[in-house]
Amino acid sequence: MKEIQSSKNTLIKETKKLQQKKYRQQTQSYLLEGFHLIQEAQAAGVVLKEVFISQRGLNEWSAWIEENLAEYYLVSDEVLKSLASQPAPQGMIAVAEMPQKETLNFSGAWLLLDNVQDPGNVGTMIRTADAAGFSGVILGQGSADLYNPKTLRSTQGSLYHLKISNQDLAEIIPQFQHAGSPVFGTALDKEAKEYLTAAKMENFALVMGNEGQGMSPELLALTDQNLYITIKGQAESLNVAIAAGVLMFHLLK
Amino acid sequence: MKEIQSSKNTLIKETKKLQQKKYRQQTQSYLLEGFHLIQEAQAAGVVLKEVFISQRGLNEWSAWIEENLAEYYLVSDEVLKSLASQPAPQGMIAVAEMPQKETLNFSGAWLLLDNVQDPGNVGTMIRTADAAGFSGVILGQGSADLYNPKTLRSTQGSLYHLKISNQDLAEIIPQFQHAGSPVFGTALDKEAKEYLTAAKMENFALVMGNEGQGMSPELLALTDQNLYITIKGQAESLNVAIAAGVLMFHLLK
Repeated sequence: MKEIQSSKNTLIKETKKLQQKKYRQQTQSYLLEGFHLIQEAQAAGVVLKEVFISQRGLNEWSAWIEENLAEYYLVSDEVLKSLASQPAPQGMIAVAEMPQKETLNFSGAWLLLDNVQDPGNVGTMIRTADAAGFSGVILGQGSADLYNPKTLRSTQGSLYHLKISNQDLAEIIPQFQHAGSPVFGTALDKEAKEYLTAAKMENFALVMGNEGQGMSPELLALTDQNLYITIKGQAESLNVAIAAGVLMFHLLK
Repeated sequence: MKEIQSSKNTLIKETKKLQQKKYRQQTQSYLLEGFHLIQEAQAAGVVLKEVFISQRGLNEWSAWIEENLAEYYLVSDEVLKSLASQPAPQGMIAVAEMPQKETLNFSGAWLLLDNVQDPGNVGTMIRTADAAGFSGVILGQGSADLYNPKTLRSTQGSLYHLKISNQDLAEIIPQFQHAGSPVFGTALDKEAKEYLTAAKMENFALVMGNEGQGMSPELLALTDQNLYITIKGQAESLNVAIAAGVLMFHLLK
């Protein structure tokens, strides 16, 4: 255990740079805020390069810290605050290593995100995909960064429970189809069908689109079938994460 | 049309107080930010006591303004910003009058919120209830304020499409039952049943609970049947707005 009292410490200043996506990509590492996410990451075998803990955090999670951390930094509240995205950080912040790229396998149910921009929506959809029993989530171009603090927080740790991959959806959709998994888009065009008429199945991909524009026409043209949810009231649309939840729970057998 | 250039103007200073719940309740009025919400309010017959518009807003929505507003204030960007909850206000902010309290009728499907604290969740659930064809939403004690800017924004205007009422749920649940509508709670207790085994129906109430603690034991004891959603993956729970969406779309005939 080492102590850091000042947010002007070199390691702290370097670590703080991970608040920016550019530095996360350069270093292939990211910040995890709060005990729950850090605990989930550790349990999933994620390498924690550095862990910063306040005195309060040390008191609260001493048993876990002793059992799981070979090394950590005891830091002042000011230091912890300087690393956090939220006004009241939860006593512990870690630097985690991004996973190696793995080859995808296309079995099971997959959620594909086409330009879903809100980090809260992306995180919530990952959490919902986990709860619905999906195998993985593919983040297409334009979608919010998985390692944005708000995305991470909204996943509630589910990013460590299923496969998550960044891919060009125009390339990946044909690969699902080649592997025998139908790909469902979401749209309101006249060839789309009401989701309740779609049979439950085990192997498929479901594509959700941008909050305002929906799916891109290029991707809609690649799907096997497009689905819609009938809106009964006067709402113009559903929040994309809500629509994804309704569809995922309906479609997966 | 009158002009206001300074955020120190008395009317602006008074209006700014509506950012606080206390003043909203005292004056029975609230702030609406952005053209879309204001347009929805006006179309629903809500009284707009004051409307503040920037030059950019005036250019963009001149036809609507001419047709719908007898009077408005042209304000500087600085003034608009001082009234807004968001860093980049959308050109128009209005002071709207809260509706008179109406007597409730218990027919149709109703969503009851027990201590749901996040304004985004409450707003999204109102939007989803609208889309699912629900008749209304009842905000129980401890739930986020309907007139919080984040709640309003998340409703996307759906607050004007169905009935919304603040009530003590312990008093209102027996009234649904007396009117012949079963009341479903959400819980993981051993007498709860998997939602997919529940029949679709037209008249009922569904209660969703707090983000962390779920429904209060007192209310769970009052319901006719409690439901749960089977979690298939390793997620500990679903976001409450997602769970509400899955249940609402499944239950309403």
